[in-house]
Amino acid sequence: MQFTSETTTSGTLPSGVIERTFTLGDITGVLWLPDSRPIGAPLLLSGHAGGMHKKAPGLVANATQCVATYGFTVAAIDAPGHGDRTRNQQDQYWADAIHQARSAREPIAPIVIDYSLSVAERAVPEWQTTLDALQAMPEIGVDTKVGYGGVTLGVVTGIALAAADSRIAALSLGGVFVNDSLIDSARKVTVPVECRMPWDGDEFERDAGIALFDAFASKEKALHVYSGRDYAIPEHERDNSARFLSRHLVGQPPTA
Amino acid sequence: MQFTSETTTSGTLPSGVIERTFTLGDITGVLWLPDSRPIGAPLLLSGHAGGMHKKAPGLVANATQCVATYGFTVAAIDAPGHGDRTRNQQDQYWADAIHQARSAREPIAPIVIDYSLSVAERAVPEWQTTLDALQAMPEIGVDTKVGYGGVTLGVVTGIALAAADSRIAALSLGGVFVNDSLIDSARKVTVPVECRMPWDGDEFERDAGIALFDAFASKEKALHVYSGRDYAIPEHERDNSARFLSRHLVGQPPTA
Repeated sequence: MQFTSETTTSGTLPSGVIERTFTLGDITGVLWLPDSRPIGAPLLLSGHAGGMHKKAPGLVANATQCVATYGFTVAAIDAPGHGDRTRNQQDQYWADAIHQARSAREPIAPIVIDYSLSVAERAVPEWQTTLDALQAMPEIGVDTKVGYGGVTLGVVTGIALAAADSRIAALSLGGVFVNDSLIDSARKVTVPVECRMPWDGDEFERDAGIALFDAFASKEKALHVYSGRDYAIPEHERDNSARFLSRHLVGQPPTA
Repeated sequence: MQFTSETTTSGTLPSGVIERTFTLGDITGVLWLPDSRPIGAPLLLSGHAGGMHKKAPGLVANATQCVATYGFTVAAIDAPGHGDRTRNQQDQYWADAIHQARSAREPIAPIVIDYSLSVAERAVPEWQTTLDALQAMPEIGVDTKVGYGGVTLGVVTGIALAAADSRIAALSLGGVFVNDSLIDSARKVTVPVECRMPWDGDEFERDAGIALFDAFASKEKALHVYSGRDYAIPEHERDNSARFLSRHLVGQPPTA
């Protein structure tokens, strides 16, 4: 793991947060740490949305809030073909097809689902390699509890990762296009999961979101539906997500 | 409003909480206040479940947590025919019919729905009278923001109260049996509402709970589904409820 930059103050970083970018083979990533270096700070792996990248504005806002307010360490990597990564021909075909379908006001879900499943399949071993490297860092170590949060493509990746790697101890997930394959993956997930879903959007279907929630084999799971069409998570739900992760990764809820 | 007792320390009261019972005409109630007497403490009206009373254990636990942790003032009254109130013949008929249906393992929903709608209709003016008296207390006053929380019968009452009285600024609701009449009432509610629903119980139907949530005309509404068959609200959801009320009644979320 090669660190390529370190930032401690910038216009966008809250105080107390250190940002480090890194490369790991082909993987390009970023790590946000509390500068207080608390012992046992949980590690949150953050999966960006389809078409976005490791420093998507919503992801950065959420990550730095988790670091500044809850003392988490947060890592994000570019998914294959996203951000600083080279996009292969097949991925470019899917990306173009989504663009064309949007322009023609045709349904994008079937394309997005195929694309996401393919990217997620490649992203899982990359997340595992990244997690190996993070656990080798003295600031993190192997005893740190690890959670995963994501939206859209990040949800597909997170479900596959949690089904494949027992190091993932909790999942916090936003909206996603759902098909049977994703539901099958969700049936393999047994760790605590919290799902969020906008109630009035036109892209994701309510019934599909509920069916996905229902499929998780987790003993503790929660579905938080919020009003509005907006896929930007309301601030109080972002806060709920951090509290959920904190409860499962730190072992106690933060005080009121 | 006649206060009939005041307790500041007891085996069940957390420190910092004052408990006062009161009567107001036929109404029998209880008030929990923070002994620090904070200015602008929001007032939460707490509606007990069918068959329970103003000091039901879950209600008391929730109320005293809201006082001790969030600085709320909380009031509860016995619903007509519940707790210290005399039960009329028709209510006794319904209570007996529910008991018989349970014993015979027959559906109780139709009876509970009729019973709850009738009790709620009578409870609404009693809550309004109680709120008038509470607002006349110097510790509370007319500028205090008022929220309402309840389960089962308390949900039916709260929806009717919020539809009828603009002083109710936010609603926090648990599980309930749903029919068209309740859904019609929910359509009249425009204040922020947060609903909670167990996912694996056998009494309340998932689809009915979702339909009720969908019916609220509120611009901000949230549905929190949690795993398990248990109607006892998980501690973290109880905490979410207090944070939701705090956000809407105090005007700012509590700190992390």
